[in-house]
Amino acid sequence: MNRNLDANHIVKLLKHGTNQPGEVIPLHEPSLTGKEWQYVKDCLDKGWVSSVGEYVNLFEKKLAQYTGARHAIAVVNGTAALHLGLKIVGVEYGDEVLLPALTFVATANAVHYCGAVPHFIDSDMDTLGIDPKKLDDYLKEITVQKNGCSYNKKTMRPIKALIAVHTFGHPADLDSIHTVCNKYHLDLIEDAAEALGSYYKQKHTGNWGKLSVLSFNGNKIITTGGGGAILTNDTGVAEIAKHVSTTAKIRHRWEFIHDQIGYNYRLPNINAALGCAQIEQIDQFINKKRSLAEKYRQLFKNVTGITFFREPAYARSNYWLNTLILDEKYTASRDSLLEATHEQGILTRPVWTLMNKLDMFQNCPHMDLSIAESLEQRMINIPSSSKLGGEDG
Amino acid sequence: MNRNLDANHIVKLLKHGTNQPGEVIPLHEPSLTGKEWQYVKDCLDKGWVSSVGEYVNLFEKKLAQYTGARHAIAVVNGTAALHLGLKIVGVEYGDEVLLPALTFVATANAVHYCGAVPHFIDSDMDTLGIDPKKLDDYLKEITVQKNGCSYNKKTMRPIKALIAVHTFGHPADLDSIHTVCNKYHLDLIEDAAEALGSYYKQKHTGNWGKLSVLSFNGNKIITTGGGGAILTNDTGVAEIAKHVSTTAKIRHRWEFIHDQIGYNYRLPNINAALGCAQIEQIDQFINKKRSLAEKYRQLFKNVTGITFFREPAYARSNYWLNTLILDEKYTASRDSLLEATHEQGILTRPVWTLMNKLDMFQNCPHMDLSIAESLEQRMINIPSSSKLGGEDG
Ligand SMILES: Cc1ncc(COP(=O)(O)O)c(C=O)c1O
Ligand SMILES: Cc1ncc(COP(=O)(O)O)c(C=O)c1O
Repeated sequence: MNRNLDANHIVKLLKHGTNQPGEVIPLHEPSLTGKEWQYVKDCLDKGWVSSVGEYVNLFEKKLAQYTGARHAIAVVNGTAALHLGLKIVGVEYGDEVLLPALTFVATANAVHYCGAVPHFIDSDMDTLGIDPKKLDDYLKEITVQKNGCSYNKKTMRPIKALIAVHTFGHPADLDSIHTVCNKYHLDLIEDAAEALGSYYKQKHTGNWGKLSVLSFNGNKIITTGGGGAILTNDTGVAEIAKHVSTTAKIRHRWEFIHDQIGYNYRLPNINAALGCAQIEQIDQFINKKRSLAEKYRQLFKNVTGITFFREPAYARSNYWLNTLILDEKYTASRDSLLEATHEQGILTRPVWTLMNKLDMFQNCPHMDLSIAESLEQRMINIPSSSKLGGEDG
Repeated sequence: MNRNLDANHIVKLLKHGTNQPGEVIPLHEPSLTGKEWQYVKDCLDKGWVSSVGEYVNLFEKKLAQYTGARHAIAVVNGTAALHLGLKIVGVEYGDEVLLPALTFVATANAVHYCGAVPHFIDSDMDTLGIDPKKLDDYLKEITVQKNGCSYNKKTMRPIKALIAVHTFGHPADLDSIHTVCNKYHLDLIEDAAEALGSYYKQKHTGNWGKLSVLSFNGNKIITTGGGGAILTNDTGVAEIAKHVSTTAKIRHRWEFIHDQIGYNYRLPNINAALGCAQIEQIDQFINKKRSLAEKYRQLFKNVTGITFFREPAYARSNYWLNTLILDEKYTASRDSLLEATHEQGILTRPVWTLMNKLDMFQNCPHMDLSIAESLEQRMINIPSSSKLGGEDG
């Protein structure tokens, strides 16, 4: 093994970077040091913990303001947002939906919830997102166009939509992906679960798709305990999202009439109260996370065999999860590095197992996945909590 | 109109019963006067708002203890619990599931989420639950048995399960329903969303089905903001419920491997903290609710044309929502009564529109629904918050 992939040395660098001697260092911890108490106590004092109360509206307004999207609809988590989003763009039983093989399982599960088939595509080494050029070539080969819709030539299923994931907060190449989607009549959904605070060419992610999805799970940049949101610039989409996520009940003083299949995907008021306090701190979280990323970059820049992953040139990323990528020839060191860091209480992790390798998706269609397969073997996420960054980190 | 259905008189009785002069009186408000703040603050102080922390385990333990079920699995709401429960008993695309036409829309939606078809059955006037005798006769007529499974003769779809709803907290006739389920090889699921604290023949509801479902929505007897649970006495069912509700991720220090389609249905820790504080107060809530019910019963006992609905003889009910039933001949007064009470700030409501009348379910199979149709026209729920009952009410 190369000296520069000496696990002990890397552990030492990580200890230096995180600077929490003697502590177990989680991969990502929430920071609840703003007005969380104040807002949550207000909910409890007023008895407004569930569907009564103003924090949901307020949180939605703050999310829209921050991201620049016209509308935000708060829901129970990111998975629910994906499911709802796919339903809203019209994904139905027997359709196909394109998405990266390299993603968290929720992205693929949500496609399955609609009775549709996930179709896995490859990633780009420099962005960790979809490779638009490779995708374009692939779709040219495997689709046939009929009545303004792409069909998979082999399965003859309609390919309805594409989900672009902003992996670890790094924006995928949205302009190029958007172009491919237009060419093949695909509705674009951005899975921005990890990308709150990440910008693509000066504009916040989540504004390219017909709609996009955020997550406020405990490990995300801001948290509501559990929560998520749909962002959209289309008022019709926003209205239907709100309606369908609240059991599709029509407005009436007392009658219970629901005009379509609906969901109980509403975020409870108490969780939204947390969210309001959290989003007030996001600039500070991002500053700290970016300074932590810069620290890591410096620490690892002379380590041969390992690259600290940097935001694409077009992007300003939230650096949600900092990522090391091993050189191809050091792939075999991945597990011993994970082992060594865990032994020292540094809770690193590898990337997700590729979706096409999971039992339930192994028969789903996919393109050549050589980049995703390579990344899968070589990525390690390292501790990234905002409190580790900045002067007071 | 009969003097005894004089809306003004009924408003007066309700004002007397609720005894909150000058206030708007909601149908059901949470009471957050126990250790809610202490437990929630503990979550915030420790940063344990999401999936880290012990409140979920503790809440599950308390739920199991209180209900006498061997296992409780906390989830994000009652709708999610129903969906998961149906999946677990094996309901699949193209199956049929029996459920009352008289229920909240979530019960029917959950069947649809599985790709299955709701099949609506009639209710019993004295229990507001399924009428087991009428059901038995109906199933004898419309089913054919093959390989230990009932098929709908007309559609040839397998009828897999039956959901028994404990309407407004009043237990359905579980022994008889259970017998019918056995006879026709149906898995029984109890929708006990409204029935925490309700007993059937000395034993807590939720213990007859293969599994059952609770809700902790803001309008329920205890609340977690939003939340629900599966109860079961089957350890295998409990294990799969836990696994599938937490993305079906297999245990591993760092690898992300999911062995089947999973859901993000886990209750966040902060919501479970609320639940722990709430369930500590349940005996007190139920005492107050039962004393409020008794007060209403006395007030309405001499009002001709209206019956205050009382728990079935076999039951001890939580009286979640108190219910007035108009005599058949006063059906036409329902809306003016709703109108008059709302004008006075007393937020009464009618029962749900029958499921078979909603657009999305209007083509679903159903039996004769004459009792449900009659009840639909004649029921009015009246304010039922626990704080309205008891000495300190
Ligand atoms: C890429 C991605 N998509 C979807 C989700 C699902 O979000 P949630 O956990 O809030 O359901 C997550 C986060 O867990 C994620 O990282
Ligand atoms: C009978 C019944 N079933 C299911 C549900 C769904 O529960 P939840 O609102 O927690 O999703 C409710 C409550 O809303 C209900 O009353």
